[in-house]
Amino acid sequence: MTAALVWPEETPAPESAVVIASGGLDSTVAAYWLRERGAEVTLLSFDYGQRHRVELDHARRVAAGLGAVHHVLDLSGLGAILSGSALTDGGVDVPDGHYTAEQMTATVVPNRNAIMLDIAVGLAVARKIQAVVFGAHAGDHPIYPDCRPVFLSAFTWSATTANEGFLPAGFAVLAPFLRATKGQIVALGAELGVPLGDTWSCYRGGDVHCGTCGTCTERREAFALAGVTDPTRYAAGMAGVV
Amino acid sequence: MTAALVWPEETPAPESAVVIASGGLDSTVAAYWLRERGAEVTLLSFDYGQRHRVELDHARRVAAGLGAVHHVLDLSGLGAILSGSALTDGGVDVPDGHYTAEQMTATVVPNRNAIMLDIAVGLAVARKIQAVVFGAHAGDHPIYPDCRPVFLSAFTWSATTANEGFLPAGFAVLAPFLRATKGQIVALGAELGVPLGDTWSCYRGGDVHCGTCGTCTERREAFALAGVTDPTRYAAGMAGVV
Repeated sequence: MTAALVWPEETPAPESAVVIASGGLDSTVAAYWLRERGAEVTLLSFDYGQRHRVELDHARRVAAGLGAVHHVLDLSGLGAILSGSALTDGGVDVPDGHYTAEQMTATVVPNRNAIMLDIAVGLAVARKIQAVVFGAHAGDHPIYPDCRPVFLSAFTWSATTANEGFLPAGFAVLAPFLRATKGQIVALGAELGVPLGDTWSCYRGGDVHCGTCGTCTERREAFALAGVTDPTRYAAGMAGVV
Repeated sequence: MTAALVWPEETPAPESAVVIASGGLDSTVAAYWLRERGAEVTLLSFDYGQRHRVELDHARRVAAGLGAVHHVLDLSGLGAILSGSALTDGGVDVPDGHYTAEQMTATVVPNRNAIMLDIAVGLAVARKIQAVVFGAHAGDHPIYPDCRPVFLSAFTWSATTANEGFLPAGFAVLAPFLRATKGQIVALGAELGVPLGDTWSCYRGGDVHCGTCGTCTERREAFALAGVTDPTRYAAGMAGVV
Protein backbone atom coordinates (compact mmCIF):
# COMPACT_ATOMS: atom_id res chain seq x y z
CA MET A 1 0.00 0.00 0.00
CA THR A 2 2.77 2.42 0.87
CA ALA A 3 4.28 2.12 -2.59
CA ALA A 4 1.04 3.01 -4.37
CA LEU A 5 0.63 6.03 -2.11
CA VAL A 6 3.94 7.66 -2.67
CA TRP A 7 4.76 9.81 -5.67
CA PRO A 8 6.75 9.51 -7.78
CA GLU A 9 6.77 5.80 -7.06
CA GLU A 10 10.35 5.20 -8.17
CA THR A 11 11.83 7.88 -5.92
CA PRO A 12 14.13 6.39 -3.28
CA ALA A 13 13.85 7.90 0.17
CA PRO A 14 16.46 10.65 0.76
CA GLU A 15 19.14 10.23 3.42
CA SER A 16 18.03 13.45 5.10
CA ALA A 17 15.01 15.70 4.69
CA VAL A 18 13.51 18.99 5.86
CA VAL A 19 9.76 18.49 6.25
CA ILE A 20 7.56 21.58 6.25
CA ALA A 21 5.57 20.73 9.35
CA SER A 22 2.17 22.31 9.94
CA GLY A 23 1.30 20.03 12.83
CA GLY A 24 -1.42 18.55 10.60
CA LEU A 25 -2.04 15.03 9.33
CA ASP A 26 -0.25 15.20 5.98
CA SER A 27 3.13 16.58 7.02
CA THR A 28 3.18 14.45 10.18
CA VAL A 29 2.55 11.22 8.31
CA ALA A 30 5.14 12.32 5.70
CA ALA A 31 7.73 12.84 8.47
CA TYR A 32 7.04 9.41 9.99
CA TRP A 33 7.11 7.80 6.55
CA LEU A 34 10.53 9.34 5.87
CA ARG A 35 11.90 8.16 9.19
CA GLU A 36 10.51 4.68 8.55
CA ARG A 37 12.46 4.72 5.29
CA GLY A 38 15.69 5.65 7.08
CA ALA A 39 15.87 9.40 6.50
CA GLU A 40 17.20 11.81 9.11
CA VAL A 41 14.27 14.18 9.55
CA THR A 42 14.34 17.90 10.41
CA LEU A 43 11.03 19.75 10.87
CA LEU A 44 10.47 23.36 9.82
CA SER A 45 7.38 25.29 10.92
CA PHE A 46 6.24 28.86 10.34
CA ASP A 47 4.46 31.36 12.48
CA TYR A 48 3.02 33.57 9.75
CA GLY A 49 0.32 35.17 11.87
CA GLN A 50 -2.16 32.40 11.14
CA ARG A 51 -5.34 32.34 13.20
CA HIS A 52 -4.82 28.65 13.92
CA ARG A 53 -1.42 29.23 15.56
CA VAL A 54 -2.24 26.40 17.95
CA GLU A 55 -1.00 24.16 15.14
CA LEU A 56 2.55 25.17 16.12
CA ASP A 57 2.14 23.51 19.51
CA HIS A 58 1.06 20.39 17.71
CA ALA A 59 4.06 20.59 15.38
CA ARG A 60 6.28 20.77 18.50
CA ARG A 61 4.55 17.71 19.92
CA VAL A 62 5.10 15.85 16.66
CA ALA A 63 8.79 16.84 16.64
CA ALA A 64 9.19 15.64 20.22
CA GLY A 65 7.53 12.33 19.33
CA LEU A 66 9.90 11.90 16.40
CA GLY A 67 12.93 13.13 18.33
CA ALA A 68 13.56 15.44 15.36
CA VAL A 69 15.31 18.82 15.22
CA HIS A 70 12.56 21.43 14.87
CA HIS A 71 12.99 24.99 13.59
CA VAL A 72 10.13 27.46 14.02
CA LEU A 73 10.59 30.63 12.00
CA ASP A 74 8.78 33.81 12.95
CA LEU A 75 7.19 35.16 9.78
CA SER A 76 4.44 36.96 11.64
CA GLY A 77 5.20 40.24 9.85
CA LEU A 78 4.02 38.53 6.69
CA GLY A 79 0.38 38.76 7.80
CA ALA A 80 0.34 42.54 7.38
CA ILE A 81 1.74 42.23 3.88
CA LEU A 82 -0.32 39.28 2.66
CA SER A 83 -3.55 40.59 4.13
CA GLY A 84 -6.92 39.67 2.70
CA SER A 85 -6.80 35.93 3.43
CA ALA A 86 -9.09 34.35 6.02
CA LEU A 87 -6.08 32.60 7.55
CA THR A 88 -4.33 35.79 8.62
CA ASP A 89 -6.85 38.63 8.51
CA GLY A 90 -9.09 39.01 11.57
CA GLY A 91 -11.68 40.81 9.44
CA VAL A 92 -12.44 37.81 7.23
CA ASP A 93 -14.53 34.88 8.53
CA VAL A 94 -13.34 31.29 8.14
CA PRO A 95 -16.03 29.65 6.01
CA ASP A 96 -17.95 26.54 7.12
CA GLY A 97 -18.55 23.74 4.73
CA HIS A 98 -16.76 21.29 2.57
CA TYR A 99 -13.06 21.86 1.97
CA THR A 100 -13.38 21.64 -1.80
CA ALA A 101 -16.19 24.17 -2.02
CA GLU A 102 -15.45 27.34 -3.94
CA GLN A 103 -15.71 29.53 -0.87
CA MET A 104 -12.65 27.87 0.61
CA THR A 105 -10.51 29.86 -1.82
CA ALA A 106 -10.87 32.59 0.85
CA THR A 107 -8.23 30.64 2.78
CA VAL A 108 -5.54 30.97 0.09
CA VAL A 109 -2.50 32.83 1.47
CA PRO A 110 -0.84 34.25 -1.64
CA ASN A 111 2.24 32.29 -2.57
CA ARG A 112 2.50 30.63 0.83
CA ASN A 113 3.88 27.28 -0.31
CA ALA A 114 6.58 28.85 -2.47
CA ILE A 115 7.70 31.08 0.42
CA MET A 116 7.86 28.20 2.89
CA LEU A 117 9.54 25.89 0.39
CA ASP A 118 12.15 28.54 -0.47
CA ILE A 119 13.10 28.91 3.17
CA ALA A 120 13.28 25.12 3.48
CA VAL A 121 15.58 25.06 0.45
CA GLY A 122 17.80 27.68 2.11
CA LEU A 123 17.96 25.48 5.20
CA ALA A 124 18.76 22.41 3.10
CA VAL A 125 21.60 24.22 1.34
CA ALA A 126 22.98 25.64 4.60
CA ARG A 127 22.87 22.32 6.47
CA LYS A 128 23.54 19.95 3.54
CA ILE A 129 20.14 18.26 3.79
CA GLN A 130 19.26 16.20 0.75
CA ALA A 131 15.55 16.81 0.31
CA VAL A 132 12.78 19.29 0.98
CA VAL A 133 9.43 17.63 1.62
CA PHE A 134 5.92 19.01 1.85
CA GLY A 135 2.61 17.32 2.46
CA ALA A 136 0.46 18.48 -0.46
CA HIS A 137 -2.06 15.80 -1.45
CA ALA A 138 -4.53 15.14 -4.25
CA GLY A 139 -7.40 16.86 -2.42
CA ASP A 140 -5.48 20.13 -2.36
CA HIS A 141 -5.19 20.49 -6.14
CA PRO A 142 -8.62 21.90 -6.99
CA ILE A 143 -8.24 25.00 -4.80
CA TYR A 144 -4.54 25.60 -4.26
CA PRO A 145 -2.55 26.18 -7.47
CA ASP A 146 0.68 25.71 -5.49
CA CYS A 147 -0.25 22.13 -4.57
CA ARG A 148 -0.33 20.83 -8.15
CA PRO A 149 2.26 18.54 -9.78
CA VAL A 150 3.08 21.27 -12.33
CA PHE A 151 3.98 23.62 -9.50
CA LEU A 152 6.27 21.01 -7.98
CA SER A 153 8.09 20.68 -11.32
CA ALA A 154 8.39 24.42 -11.80
CA PHE A 155 9.51 25.06 -8.25
CA THR A 156 12.10 22.29 -8.38
CA TRP A 157 13.64 23.76 -11.53
CA SER A 158 13.72 27.20 -10.00
CA ALA A 159 15.26 26.02 -6.71
CA THR A 160 17.86 23.92 -8.50
CA THR A 161 18.80 26.83 -10.75
CA ALA A 162 18.93 29.30 -7.87
CA ASN A 163 21.40 27.18 -5.91
CA GLU A 164 23.52 25.59 -8.60
CA GLY A 165 26.89 24.62 -7.19
CA PHE A 166 25.64 24.72 -3.60
CA LEU A 167 23.14 21.85 -3.50
CA PRO A 168 23.81 18.51 -1.79
CA ALA A 169 24.19 15.62 -4.25
CA GLY A 170 20.84 14.08 -5.18
CA PHE A 171 18.89 17.12 -3.99
CA ALA A 172 15.14 16.84 -4.54
CA VAL A 173 11.88 18.58 -3.67
CA LEU A 174 9.35 15.90 -2.79
CA ALA A 175 5.61 15.89 -2.25
CA PRO A 176 5.17 12.17 -1.62
CA PHE A 177 1.38 12.35 -1.20
CA LEU A 178 0.66 14.38 -4.31
CA ARG A 179 -1.45 11.58 -5.73
CA ALA A 180 -2.83 10.31 -2.43
CA THR A 181 -6.19 11.08 -0.87
CA LYS A 182 -6.47 12.25 2.73
CA GLY A 183 -8.09 8.91 3.57
CA GLN A 184 -5.05 7.05 2.24
CA ILE A 185 -2.75 9.29 4.28
CA VAL A 186 -4.71 8.51 7.47
CA ALA A 187 -4.55 4.79 6.64
CA LEU A 188 -0.79 4.99 6.10
CA GLY A 189 -0.39 6.93 9.34
CA ALA A 190 -2.28 4.26 11.27
CA GLU A 191 -0.16 1.56 9.63
CA LEU A 192 3.06 3.39 10.66
CA GLY A 193 1.82 3.92 14.22
CA VAL A 194 1.78 7.72 13.90
CA PRO A 195 0.16 9.42 16.94
CA LEU A 196 -2.57 10.96 14.76
CA GLY A 197 -4.32 12.41 17.82
CA ASP A 198 -1.36 14.78 18.26
CA THR A 199 -2.05 16.47 14.93
CA TRP A 200 -4.12 19.59 14.36
CA SER A 201 -6.27 20.47 11.33
CA CYS A 202 -8.85 23.10 12.33
CA TYR A 203 -8.48 26.52 10.71
CA ARG A 204 -10.39 28.18 13.57
CA GLY A 205 -7.76 27.38 16.19
CA GLY A 206 -9.79 26.99 19.44
CA ASP A 207 -9.08 24.57 22.30
CA VAL A 208 -10.55 21.67 20.37
CA HIS A 209 -11.27 21.16 16.66
CA CYS A 210 -14.43 23.10 15.70
CA GLY A 211 -15.71 20.18 13.66
CA THR A 212 -17.41 22.27 10.98
CA CYS A 213 -14.77 24.25 9.02
CA GLY A 214 -13.43 22.88 5.76
CA THR A 215 -10.38 21.17 7.21
CA CYS A 216 -12.36 19.63 10.09
CA THR A 217 -14.91 18.30 7.59
CA GLU A 218 -12.11 16.82 5.52
CA ARG A 219 -10.38 15.36 8.60
CA ARG A 220 -13.52 13.56 9.79
CA GLU A 221 -14.19 12.18 6.35
CA ALA A 222 -10.59 10.97 5.99
CA PHE A 223 -10.76 8.90 9.19
CA ALA A 224 -14.15 7.52 8.19
CA LEU A 225 -12.96 6.57 4.70
CA ALA A 226 -9.77 5.00 6.08
CA GLY A 227 -11.78 2.95 8.57
CA VAL A 228 -9.56 4.32 11.35
CA THR A 229 -11.04 5.40 14.69
CA ASP A 230 -10.86 9.21 14.88
CA PRO A 231 -9.15 10.22 18.17
CA THR A 232 -10.06 13.90 17.64
CA ARG A 233 -12.34 15.89 19.97
CA TYR A 234 -14.70 18.12 17.98
CA ALA A 235 -16.75 21.03 19.38
CA ALA A 236 -19.67 20.38 17.03
CA GLY A 237 -20.82 17.46 14.93
CA MET A 238 -21.65 17.17 11.27
CA ALA A 239 -25.37 16.69 10.64
CA GLY A 240 -26.13 12.98 10.46
CA VAL A 241 -22.66 11.96 11.64
CA VAL A 242 -22.54 12.56 15.40
CA MET B 1 21.24 54.71 -23.48
CA THR B 2 18.36 53.73 -21.24
CA ALA B 3 16.92 51.39 -23.85
CA ALA B 4 20.17 49.49 -24.30
CA LEU B 5 20.49 49.11 -20.54
CA VAL B 6 17.18 47.53 -19.83
CA TRP B 7 16.46 43.86 -20.34
CA PRO B 8 14.52 42.51 -22.05
CA GLU B 9 14.55 45.55 -24.29
CA GLU B 10 11.04 45.10 -25.67
CA THR B 11 9.40 44.89 -22.24
CA PRO B 12 7.02 47.79 -21.64
CA ALA B 13 7.15 49.31 -18.16
CA PRO B 14 4.49 47.84 -15.85
CA GLU B 15 1.70 50.02 -14.46
CA SER B 16 2.72 49.09 -10.93
CA ALA B 17 5.70 47.32 -9.42
CA VAL B 18 7.11 45.98 -6.15
CA VAL B 19 10.83 46.66 -6.11
CA ILE B 20 12.99 44.62 -3.76
CA ALA B 21 14.87 47.51 -2.19
CA SER B 22 18.21 46.92 -0.50
CA GLY B 23 19.01 50.61 -0.20
CA GLY B 24 21.83 50.02 -2.68
CA LEU B 25 22.56 51.47 -6.11
CA ASP B 26 20.89 48.86 -8.32
CA SER B 27 17.46 48.64 -6.74
CA THR B 28 17.33 52.41 -6.15
CA VAL B 29 18.08 53.22 -9.78
CA ALA B 30 15.58 50.53 -10.84
CA ALA B 31 12.88 52.15 -8.68
CA TYR B 32 13.56 55.62 -10.15
CA TRP B 33 13.66 54.19 -13.66
CA LEU B 34 10.24 52.57 -13.13
CA ARG B 35 8.76 55.79 -11.80
CA GLU B 36 10.23 57.70 -14.74
CA ARG B 37 8.40 55.24 -17.00
CA GLY B 38 5.09 55.87 -15.22
CA ALA B 39 4.87 52.90 -12.86
CA GLU B 40 3.41 53.17 -9.38
CA VAL B 41 6.29 51.94 -7.22
CA THR B 42 6.12 50.04 -3.91
CA LEU B 43 9.37 49.19 -2.12
CA LEU B 44 9.90 45.98 -0.15
CA SER B 45 12.91 45.53 2.14
CA PHE B 46 13.99 42.72 4.42
CA ASP B 47 15.66 42.63 7.78
CA TYR B 48 17.16 39.16 7.63
CA GLY B 49 19.73 39.71 10.35
CA GLN B 50 22.30 41.07 7.90
CA ARG B 51 25.39 42.66 9.38
CA HIS B 52 24.91 45.70 7.14
CA ARG B 53 21.45 46.44 8.53
CA VAL B 54 22.22 50.14 8.10
CA GLU B 55 21.12 49.56 4.50
CA LEU B 56 17.53 49.51 5.75
CA ASP B 57 17.82 53.15 6.85
CA HIS B 58 19.04 53.95 3.38
CA ALA B 59 16.12 52.06 1.83
CA ARG B 60 13.79 54.19 3.98
CA ARG B 61 15.51 57.34 2.77
CA VAL B 62 15.12 56.20 -0.84
CA ALA B 63 11.42 55.43 -0.27
CA ALA B 64 10.89 58.88 1.25
CA GLY B 65 12.65 60.49 -1.71
CA LEU B 66 10.41 58.59 -4.11
CA GLY B 67 7.27 59.13 -2.03
CA ALA B 68 6.73 55.37 -2.34
CA VAL B 69 4.93 52.94 -0.03
CA HIS B 70 7.64 50.95 1.77
CA HIS B 71 7.21 47.60 3.52
CA VAL B 72 10.02 46.28 5.73
CA LEU B 73 9.58 42.64 6.66
CA ASP B 74 11.27 41.22 9.73
CA LEU B 75 12.97 38.02 8.66
CA SER B 76 15.60 38.24 11.36
CA GLY B 77 14.88 34.69 12.54
CA LEU B 78 16.23 33.53 9.20
CA GLY B 79 19.80 34.24 10.28
CA ALA B 80 19.80 31.38 12.79
CA ILE B 81 18.53 28.99 10.13
CA LEU B 82 20.68 30.11 7.22
CA SER B 83 23.84 30.38 9.29
CA GLY B 84 27.26 30.01 7.80
CA SER B 85 27.18 33.09 5.53
CA ALA B 86 29.40 36.11 6.22
CA LEU B 87 26.35 38.36 5.83
CA THR B 88 24.49 36.95 8.82
CA ASP B 89 26.97 35.03 10.95
CA GLY B 90 29.06 37.07 13.39
CA GLY B 91 31.70 34.32 13.41
CA VAL B 92 32.63 34.71 9.74
CA ASP B 93 34.70 37.67 8.52
CA VAL B 94 33.60 39.78 5.56
CA PRO B 95 36.39 39.37 3.02
CA ASP B 96 38.32 42.30 1.56
CA GLY B 97 39.07 42.46 -2.10
CA HIS B 98 37.42 42.50 -5.44
CA TYR B 99 33.73 41.62 -5.59
CA THR B 100 34.21 39.00 -8.29
CA ALA B 101 36.96 37.18 -6.44
CA GLU B 102 36.25 33.61 -5.42
CA GLN B 103 36.37 34.42 -1.71
CA MET B 104 33.27 36.57 -2.09
CA THR B 105 31.20 33.40 -2.34
CA ALA B 106 31.41 33.53 1.47
CA THR B 107 28.72 36.22 1.23
CA VAL B 108 26.14 33.97 -0.43
CA VAL B 109 23.01 33.65 1.73
CA PRO B 110 21.45 30.38 0.60
CA ASN B 111 18.42 30.94 -1.60
CA ARG B 112 18.07 34.58 -0.55
CA ASN B 113 16.81 35.97 -3.84
CA ALA B 114 14.16 33.29 -4.25
CA ILE B 115 12.91 33.89 -0.70
CA MET B 116 12.70 37.67 -1.18
CA LEU B 117 11.19 37.36 -4.66
CA ASP B 118 8.52 34.91 -3.52
CA ILE B 119 7.47 37.22 -0.70
CA ALA B 120 7.32 40.05 -3.24
CA VAL B 121 5.15 37.83 -5.44
CA GLY B 122 2.81 37.25 -2.48
CA LEU B 123 2.57 41.01 -2.00
CA ALA B 124 1.92 41.52 -5.71
CA VAL B 125 -0.90 38.95 -5.69
CA ALA B 126 -2.43 40.35 -2.49
CA ARG B 127 -2.32 43.98 -3.66
CA LYS B 128 -2.83 43.44 -7.41
CA ILE B 129 0.57 44.82 -8.35
CA GLN B 130 1.61 44.01 -11.89
CA ALA B 131 5.32 43.34 -11.58
CA VAL B 132 8.02 42.19 -9.21
CA VAL B 133 11.37 43.85 -9.86
CA PHE B 134 14.84 43.14 -8.56
CA GLY B 135 18.17 44.79 -9.24
CA ALA B 136 20.41 41.89 -10.28
CA HIS B 137 22.99 43.02 -12.83
CA ALA B 138 25.59 41.46 -15.10
CA GLY B 139 28.34 41.70 -12.47
CA ASP B 140 26.36 39.48 -10.09
CA HIS B 141 26.21 36.45 -12.39
CA PRO B 142 29.64 34.94 -11.78
CA ILE B 143 29.13 34.45 -8.04
CA TYR B 144 25.39 34.37 -7.38
CA PRO B 145 23.55 31.58 -9.21
CA ASP B 146 20.24 33.29 -8.36
CA CYS B 147 21.21 36.41 -10.34
CA ARG B 148 21.46 34.66 -13.73
CA PRO B 149 18.98 34.95 -16.62
CA VAL B 150 18.22 31.21 -16.37
CA PHE B 151 17.16 31.70 -12.75
CA LEU B 152 14.86 34.55 -13.75
CA SER B 153 13.18 32.27 -16.33
CA ALA B 154 12.84 29.38 -13.90
CA PHE B 155 11.57 31.56 -11.09
CA THR B 156 9.03 33.29 -13.32
CA TRP B 157 7.58 29.94 -14.42
CA SER B 158 7.40 28.75 -10.83
CA ALA B 159 5.76 31.95 -9.55
CA THR B 160 3.26 32.00 -12.41
CA THR B 161 2.35 28.35 -11.82
CA ALA B 162 2.06 28.80 -8.07
CA ASN B 163 -0.46 31.63 -8.41
CA GLU B 164 -2.43 30.69 -11.49
CA GLY B 165 -5.85 32.32 -11.38
CA PHE B 166 -4.74 34.91 -8.82
CA LEU B 167 -2.20 36.98 -10.76
CA PRO B 168 -2.89 40.49 -12.09
CA ALA B 169 -3.12 40.65 -15.89
CA GLY B 170 0.29 41.07 -17.52
CA PHE B 171 2.14 39.91 -14.41
CA ALA B 172 5.92 39.77 -14.84
CA VAL B 173 9.10 39.28 -12.85
CA LEU B 174 11.65 41.79 -14.13
CA ALA B 175 15.38 42.24 -13.62
CA PRO B 176 15.84 45.24 -15.90
CA PHE B 177 19.61 45.49 -15.32
CA LEU B 178 20.40 41.83 -15.90
CA ARG B 179 22.63 42.71 -18.84
CA ALA B 180 23.91 46.02 -17.48
CA THR B 181 27.19 46.72 -15.73
CA LYS B 182 27.31 48.58 -12.44
CA GLY B 183 28.95 51.48 -14.26
CA GLN B 184 26.00 51.71 -16.65
CA ILE B 185 23.58 51.66 -13.72
CA VAL B 186 25.42 54.57 -12.06
CA ALA B 187 25.37 56.48 -15.37
CA LEU B 188 21.61 55.88 -15.73
CA GLY B 189 21.07 56.94 -12.13
CA ALA B 190 22.93 60.21 -12.72
CA GLU B 191 20.89 60.78 -15.90
CA LEU B 192 17.63 60.26 -13.99
CA GLY B 193 18.72 62.55 -11.14
CA VAL B 194 18.70 59.73 -8.56
CA PRO B 195 20.17 60.84 -5.18
CA LEU B 196 22.96 58.25 -5.41
CA GLY B 197 24.56 59.54 -2.21
CA ASP B 198 21.54 58.22 -0.28
CA THR B 199 22.33 54.63 -1.26
CA TRP B 200 24.36 52.13 0.72
CA SER B 201 26.62 49.35 -0.59
CA CYS B 202 29.10 48.35 2.14
CA TYR B 203 28.72 44.82 3.53
CA ARG B 204 30.49 45.84 6.76
CA GLY B 205 27.79 48.28 7.84
CA GLY B 206 29.68 50.95 9.83
CA ASP B 207 28.92 54.68 9.97
CA VAL B 208 30.52 55.26 6.58
CA HIS B 209 31.38 52.89 3.73
CA CYS B 210 34.55 50.92 4.65
CA GLY B 211 35.95 51.40 1.15
CA THR B 212 37.70 48.02 0.94
CA CYS B 213 35.11 45.21 0.98
CA GLY B 214 33.90 43.70 -2.29
CA THR B 215 30.84 45.90 -2.70
CA CYS B 216 32.75 49.09 -1.79
CA THR B 217 35.42 48.18 -4.36
CA GLU B 218 32.73 47.61 -6.96
CA ARG B 219 30.92 50.84 -6.03
CA ARG B 220 34.04 53.00 -6.42
CA GLU B 221 34.86 51.42 -9.75
CA ALA B 222 31.31 51.90 -11.01
CA PHE B 223 31.39 55.66 -10.36
CA ALA B 224 34.84 55.91 -11.94
CA LEU B 225 33.79 53.97 -15.04
CA ALA B 226 30.58 56.00 -15.38
CA GLY B 227 32.53 59.25 -15.11
CA VAL B 228 30.18 60.34 -12.33
CA THR B 229 31.50 62.09 -9.22
CA ASP B 230 31.25 59.66 -6.29
CA PRO B 231 29.40 61.36 -3.39
CA THR B 232 30.26 58.49 -1.00
CA ARG B 233 32.41 58.89 2.14
CA TYR B 234 34.79 55.96 2.53
CA ALA B 235 36.74 55.08 5.69
CA ALA B 236 39.77 53.80 3.73
CA GLY B 237 41.05 54.25 0.22
CA MET B 238 42.09 51.76 -2.39
CA ALA B 239 45.81 51.70 -3.01
CA GLY B 240 46.62 54.11 -5.85
CA VAL B 241 43.13 55.58 -5.96
CA VAL B 242 42.82 57.96 -3.00
